[in-house]
Amino acid sequence: MHVALLGLGLIGGSIARALAADRGSGEVHRVTAWTPSGEGPRLALAAGVIDALAGDPETAMAGADLVVLAGPPLACVDLLRRLGSDLRGSLEPGATVTDVASTKGVLASIARAGGVPYVGGHPMAGRETSGFGAADASLFRDRPWVIGEPVAGGDPARVRALALACGARPVELDAETHDRLVAAISHLPLITSVALVEAVAGTAGATVPDWTEAVMLAASGWRDTTRLARGDVTMGTEITVTNAVALAVRLRAYRARVDEWIALLEAPGGPDAEVVRARLAEARSRLEG
Amino acid sequence: MHVALLGLGLIGGSIARALAADRGSGEVHRVTAWTPSGEGPRLALAAGVIDALAGDPETAMAGADLVVLAGPPLACVDLLRRLGSDLRGSLEPGATVTDVASTKGVLASIARAGGVPYVGGHPMAGRETSGFGAADASLFRDRPWVIGEPVAGGDPARVRALALACGARPVELDAETHDRLVAAISHLPLITSVALVEAVAGTAGATVPDWTEAVMLAASGWRDTTRLARGDVTMGTEITVTNAVALAVRLRAYRARVDEWIALLEAPGGPDAEVVRARLAEARSRLEG
Repeated sequence: MHVALLGLGLIGGSIARALAADRGSGEVHRVTAWTPSGEGPRLALAAGVIDALAGDPETAMAGADLVVLAGPPLACVDLLRRLGSDLRGSLEPGATVTDVASTKGVLASIARAGGVPYVGGHPMAGRETSGFGAADASLFRDRPWVIGEPVAGGDPARVRALALACGARPVELDAETHDRLVAAISHLPLITSVALVEAVAGTAGATVPDWTEAVMLAASGWRDTTRLARGDVTMGTEITVTNAVALAVRLRAYRARVDEWIALLEAPGGPDAEVVRARLAEARSRLEG
Repeated sequence: MHVALLGLGLIGGSIARALAADRGSGEVHRVTAWTPSGEGPRLALAAGVIDALAGDPETAMAGADLVVLAGPPLACVDLLRRLGSDLRGSLEPGATVTDVASTKGVLASIARAGGVPYVGGHPMAGRETSGFGAADASLFRDRPWVIGEPVAGGDPARVRALALACGARPVELDAETHDRLVAAISHLPLITSVALVEAVAGTAGATVPDWTEAVMLAASGWRDTTRLARGDVTMGTEITVTNAVALAVRLRAYRARVDEWIALLEAPGGPDAEVVRARLAEARSRLEG
């Protein structure tokens, strides 16, 4: 299988490194790559991690059995649209397009509209770091790699082979289910983390008066709970925008729990300690279960 | 200075270990300890970390210049009440009582009501582990150690000496300011973390239908954001109950931010990407600043 990587940052680069480590034993015999700046592919070629760099997407895709859109979500959206129009002729007959974006519904719709042979993918792994320099062959090892429903003749077996070659565990989920689940387990924590920073530190032009004093007392709990708010802003924006509907549903459910806590804390005579204890114990046991 | 530790779990034990490491160079020449079960003091005496264990609080306090209430918050509340009544005669003339509890207002009020010479303390360090076995001489190194306003003739210099002997940075804050600040930086993150688990997993008797599927996709972001919900339930309950007023104020401010996010996500035509980006960028820059 010849794999073309359109995008070679943390995720694309880690795929390239994992495939390089797997070469010979696996199904992938050739990897080509393109990015808009060309920086990642130059570093990867010099490191012997890819077989060829390409100056444009068309060249990278020539002869490829699997085209992996590995850039930021909106770059993937743009390339997938082009694969249904001006880049359509550059896709080999029988080739499949996949991607690594954190939301799947928008991409599946675009592929469907453009008649692009597509199977969405989402390796559930990430770091706060970015760029090819942070790429790591073991990033996906034993992690779930979601594989979507086939669109317009896309072949899921190729995406499955890619996931296995990277050491990941393939998990089949249609785009709608995927987006609903990651809204809960991944996108909601981002927004609650950002809202926490906003509540304690302030928003643009409205600093909370005692923020500077408060942060002097910050310990590991604060750092952990706000770690997602330190993540990549472009990635966070694109996730939020492309999965807004499912995320809003989760955020409303979350607000209902926050409202219960406010009512509990403001009960006349103070909160009922046994109710507080039961809620904390229940949450803890869910995480252990 | 002779220090009596009433409580010898993670925090009391770490104080004992830090003082043992500092003995000779510092002001503390003797450490005695008592706990209800006696287990920590037995281990500590065997390890040469304390000078004597006591079978009751009275014996532990005999000759002590500084009495440290180092048990869970409600155990500290109970002992402080007793120091204003049946244990009053066991406190040496001129001795000062301090504590390590996460909230300070309730304890300062009790000391004031009982005429106990008290200066509140709060070393800003913790772990998810507990018990003397988890105690670590370096737990407080370079961490803030909040020292409250003196009550009924308590001597802040002794609490300051204790903090310095443990390698911590003393920070003077009155009880009300302390409780307001930790409500934001420490107690609010606990509740947002618990509410997140409740929203995604469910509450008692009401499991969220896709929780089992969702948690299969959990990555490090989920684990970090929910880490505080895995903490000690008794500690969490006592913090929540004793700082409910300040915490409710912060939680209302937090809900206002969540409401803004819901409005943004549900905007007709989808969220405004530039507003989303600006909010994420602002939160990120607050954390870096």
